[in-house]
Parts: sequence; C-alpha cells; structure tokens
Amino acid sequence: MDVKIALLGAGKVGQGFLANLRKRREQLSSRYGITFQLVSICDLAGGSIISPTGLKISEILPILENNGSLVEYEPSGQVCVKGMDVNACIEMSHADVVLESIVFNQETGEPALSYIRKALGLRKHVVTCNKGPVSMHYKELTSLAKANGVRFLFGGTMMNGTPVINIISNSFRADEVREIRGVLNVSANYILWAMEQGLSYEEGIKEARHLGYLEADASLDLEGHDSLAKLVILLNILTNGDFPSHQIVREGITQITSRDIGLGMERGLRYKMMVGAARSEDGQWQGQVGLQKLEESDPFYNLDKTRNALLIRTETVGDIYLEGPGAGKIRAGNALLSDLLSIYAT
Amino acid sequence: MDVKIALLGAGKVGQGFLANLRKRREQLSSRYGITFQLVSICDLAGGSIISPTGLKISEILPILENNGSLVEYEPSGQVCVKGMDVNACIEMSHADVVLESIVFNQETGEPALSYIRKALGLRKHVVTCNKGPVSMHYKELTSLAKANGVRFLFGGTMMNGTPVINIISNSFRADEVREIRGVLNVSANYILWAMEQGLSYEEGIKEARHLGYLEADASLDLEGHDSLAKLVILLNILTNGDFPSHQIVREGITQITSRDIGLGMERGLRYKMMVGAARSEDGQWQGQVGLQKLEESDPFYNLDKTRNALLIRTETVGDIYLEGPGAGKIRAGNALLSDLLSIYAT
Repeated sequence: MDVKIALLGAGKVGQGFLANLRKRREQLSSRYGITFQLVSICDLAGGSIISPTGLKISEILPILENNGSLVEYEPSGQVCVKGMDVNACIEMSHADVVLESIVFNQETGEPALSYIRKALGLRKHVVTCNKGPVSMHYKELTSLAKANGVRFLFGGTMMNGTPVINIISNSFRADEVREIRGVLNVSANYILWAMEQGLSYEEGIKEARHLGYLEADASLDLEGHDSLAKLVILLNILTNGDFPSHQIVREGITQITSRDIGLGMERGLRYKMMVGAARSEDGQWQGQVGLQKLEESDPFYNLDKTRNALLIRTETVGDIYLEGPGAGKIRAGNALLSDLLSIYAT
Repeated sequence: MDVKIALLGAGKVGQGFLANLRKRREQLSSRYGITFQLVSICDLAGGSIISPTGLKISEILPILENNGSLVEYEPSGQVCVKGMDVNACIEMSHADVVLESIVFNQETGEPALSYIRKALGLRKHVVTCNKGPVSMHYKELTSLAKANGVRFLFGGTMMNGTPVINIISNSFRADEVREIRGVLNVSANYILWAMEQGLSYEEGIKEARHLGYLEADASLDLEGHDSLAKLVILLNILTNGDFPSHQIVREGITQITSRDIGLGMERGLRYKMMVGAARSEDGQWQGQVGLQKLEESDPFYNLDKTRNALLIRTETVGDIYLEGPGAGKIRAGNALLSDLLSIYAT
C-alpha cells in the first residue's frame, strides 16, 4: 500500500520523524507492505515544497539538519512546487495523512489548530505532537475526525514514545479510571534533581537548557503550563470532552529554593513536580499541578531525573504504573511514526 | 449492537468475567451502545447450557459461586438446552464470541486448544486467558483467526489487566524491541518476600496457597513453567511465530533456602524470580527464566510482593517499565471483558 504523507513543521521533531522513517523504511515495507511517500513539507519559517512523486528524504534531511530550512533546496529530477502557504499545501498535496509538528501559540493553539481542522475536513488523517490543539479543542477535533471517517492521533504529545495515550484511550473500557498521578515534565524533574546535587535553581535551569530539556519559552516548563496541558489531555480522554483547564490548580517550581530542597532532604523527602487528578463518587474530576514533597515509599520518589511516569488507579484492576523516557526529539519523531503506523499497519 | 457470547469454563475466572459484565452492563450499553447476551455456558465439570434468548447472569452467578456448577440449575421462563458437550455448544449457540477459560493440559494445551480451533474455524472471535494454547500454538491460531476474519485475543494471560499484551503487540511498530525483563509470577514473588520476612520455603508456599496465589498444581509456579509460558507468549508476539520454548533456560525457585535469602540480604541483595530475553544483532532471541540476585539499583528490587512488572527495552524509545497487580480472579475476568470490548467498542 502506498501512503502519501505531508509534514507540517520541519523543526527538530519533524526532522526526528524523517530520520526514523528513513531508517525504518525498508523494514516497514517488508513487514507491513506499506510504502510512505513524502509528498509535501511545509514549515512556517522554512518554506514549503510539494512533490506529487515524493520527496527524497535522504536529500532533504541533511539540508534541514544543517540549515533548518528548505528555502534554498533545489530538487533534482522531481516535479516540485515551492513557496506555497501551508493551507495550499494541505489542499493540494494529495496527502492521505498530515503530520503536524508546527510551532503554535500557547494561548490559542494557532495556527496548528486551523491546519488540523482543514486537514480533517478534507478527510485526511492527522497525527500531531502538539499539546495545544489537543488540550484546548479535543472534543471538536475528535468529533471532526469521526464525522469525516479519519483518525486524529496524538501519542507524541507526552512521554516520548511511552504508549500512555494508547493505554488511557484503549485499555480500560471494562474498568473505570479513578485517579491519575505522574511526573510529565522532564525539565522540572531534572532541575529539582540538580538542586539536590547542590546546584542553585538558576544553575539547574542552565543545565536543563544546555541538555535541550527546556522549551524555548522556559516559563512553559517552570510555571507548570506544560504539565497542565498534558494533564488536561489525559482528562479530555477520560471524560471524552474538553476538561476546563482553569479548574486545575497550577503551581510551578519557580518558588523553590535550595534551602527548601535541603530541608526536605534532611527529612528524607524529595520534591517532585507532579500532576494529579482524582474522580469523585459523583463522577467529577479534580486536578492539580505543582510541587509535592515525596516520602521514600512514594512510587515516584526514585524516578530518575530524565524520566517521566504515570500511575493509573482503576476501580477493578487497581494501580498500573508506567514509566519511560522524558525527552528526545528523535523519540518524539518516532511517536509520530508510531501513530502513523497504527492507522495502516495491522 | 447485540453481541452474543459463549463462556467456556465457569471457574473462578469465568465467574470473575460474569461478575464484571453484570456490574458494567448498563455502563457499556450507554457508553458504547453494546448489549451482551450470554447465550451459552459450558464447563467440563459443571455441565453446559444453551439459551438462544440469553441466560440471566443475575440468576446464574450466585449458583456458580455457591455450587461451582450449573448441573442443578433450572432456568425459569427461558428456552434452554442443557447437557450438550462443549463442541456442540460452540457449534449451536450462535455466539459471535467464544470466551475460553477452561482447564487445560499443560503438555498439550487440550482441550482448550481444540475448542479455540473450532470456534475460530466457525468465524467466531475468541478471547482466552489460558496460556497454553497461546504459548504453544500462537502462529496457527493467529493465522486461523486472520484467515477467518475474526480476532484472537489473549490479554488475560498475564499481568491481570495491566495492558502488557496490548503494548507489546501494538506500540512498537515504528521501533524494535531489543530486550524484555520482568517478574510475571506472583506466587514465586510472594514466597521469596515471605522468606525475607523469616518464613521457611514451606511456610511461604503455605501462605501463598492460602492467599490463592498458587496454581492448583504448585509445581507450575515453583518450577518456573508459568513464567516460561508467559515469556514464550511475549516472544511469540515479538517474533510473530512459535518461539521454541525448549531453547529457554528454565530454573524454578525450588532450590532456594532461607540461608541463601539471609546471605543475600546481608549483602543488600534480594532474590527475584525473573524472566528475561534479549535479541542479538542477527535478530535471534535468547531467553531465560530463573532466580536472580538483584542489587538495590535494579528496577525490580523494590517490586512489591503482590505485583508483576515488565521492562521493555527498545532501540529508539529506550526503557519502558510497566507494573501492575499480579493476582486476582476478578481482575483476570475483567481482562476477558476488556478484550471483548476491544473487538466491538470504539
């Protein structure tokens, strides 16, 4: 089967997707009989390109990795159209699936949101790794996908390839999730660990930035917005609706001091940036995001500085704990590919 | 949608399934629009019964829980046929799905195997919680299901509702699993913990039996057969074939002494009954089942006495750790219901 794909956003995650696709291409063809054709790449910053016959990833990827842009790319021996806007690319590329990893405004989810709407409306499957549209417009986008007979997948929005979205969505149909609790932001987790090693808050931030753990706008991580958006996505799935994020108490790690960390350690306590939500008997969920002082018996106490984890407490099965890596653009790109395969490979 | 189901085996797991179905019935109807009709129960020991109009679970379940058998059950106001053999029940019950939880021979997988073959051949979906048929005849049964356009599901064969089969089967299409390692037998895990608390091996067995953790034939747990079968199922999925179980080095916990446990504890080491398998560069898997002495840094060191866990190491995503409850017939019954819903509920 030939599957035509369009990639929106050619940043690190988009490049990670392309690197994974290039690496796995033959394996996917022999194992599932699927050949992916990259018929378009569009980037707000880097220009756009459409090729009905398929772009050569081996040519494109090194250019993106070096220049971050395809503006100067001149394809050889391919029919290509360059310089169209993203909407035109979605409309004209004949893609079966749109992979969306474009930069978006944290307040509005735009322009990612509009691109997803357009693609779903044109009966194209959409795979995204962007939290904004999924946390803010879950109900609309899942309904739109359903009405158009296509899939809307977002496994790459958290935990970097650990299949937490798949599990929350599909594994408890015969059960009832009562509570979730987890560490979903790797930079806060890392900074708190660094402070335990004696670094100041500012030094911790510097290290986290150096390691690529921080968002470009660090306040998204440090003030808990990133954790909040992830928690809201989980609650959207669990409630099959748009969970009102303003109802979630949010606190960041910006108030933490080395003294707090030290006093905690003296008492055997460890600070973690947690998300949590519980369902009351009447079916209402209450959630919070913020620092917690954990005792050694807590399942998150020993969670490594670079990892994420989620505890899912259900009525019948009980406590399920899932842990995986917290960062990595290659892994995020792999999550896009994994979602893509879940549409076609069986 | 009306779905007709036949239940083979009315032991604790079958009863657990019925209890879960009774509890969730209205919820499943309102949430997914599915109504399940129990058109047959067949038990090797307890007799069989077919009802085209559907048996009343609220009548049947208390009788099963009290008598372990439906031999003396006289349904009121329903058209029923009693006393047919299991094959006849599969053939004549008009079930869409056969749920299989019947006792089977550990050497041959029979009669569970033949019943599964028959049901799949008649284009009925099959959901089983029995390890034998899946560990010994995976390739044949999955191919038979595919050829007949039906599903063959076995999420209840391990980890009691923790979605490990789902994850191993569906979450790494874009990745490559390199290694798995875990604790999949709760009775061995419990006995080793009990010995750390000062009990002898025999006392540990007695307690595990009292708590319902041991199979009727305790050697299945103590000699590692149960762990082996679970490891083979995972390897069958990963290799998409029948993994030769004789190639797996198997050791039980029967040689362990209180002195071993004590010496380990003095050095900060803890014994766990582990399964493990790794894939070499040339794609070959090698596996083993047996006791390991774990250091405190090992992810399984602090695993609770009643829980199971699996570490999945992949090429791209890295280490994913999944932990959940190890025992419970209600949970095993819930796993059957969960698989059943994954066929029909979307």
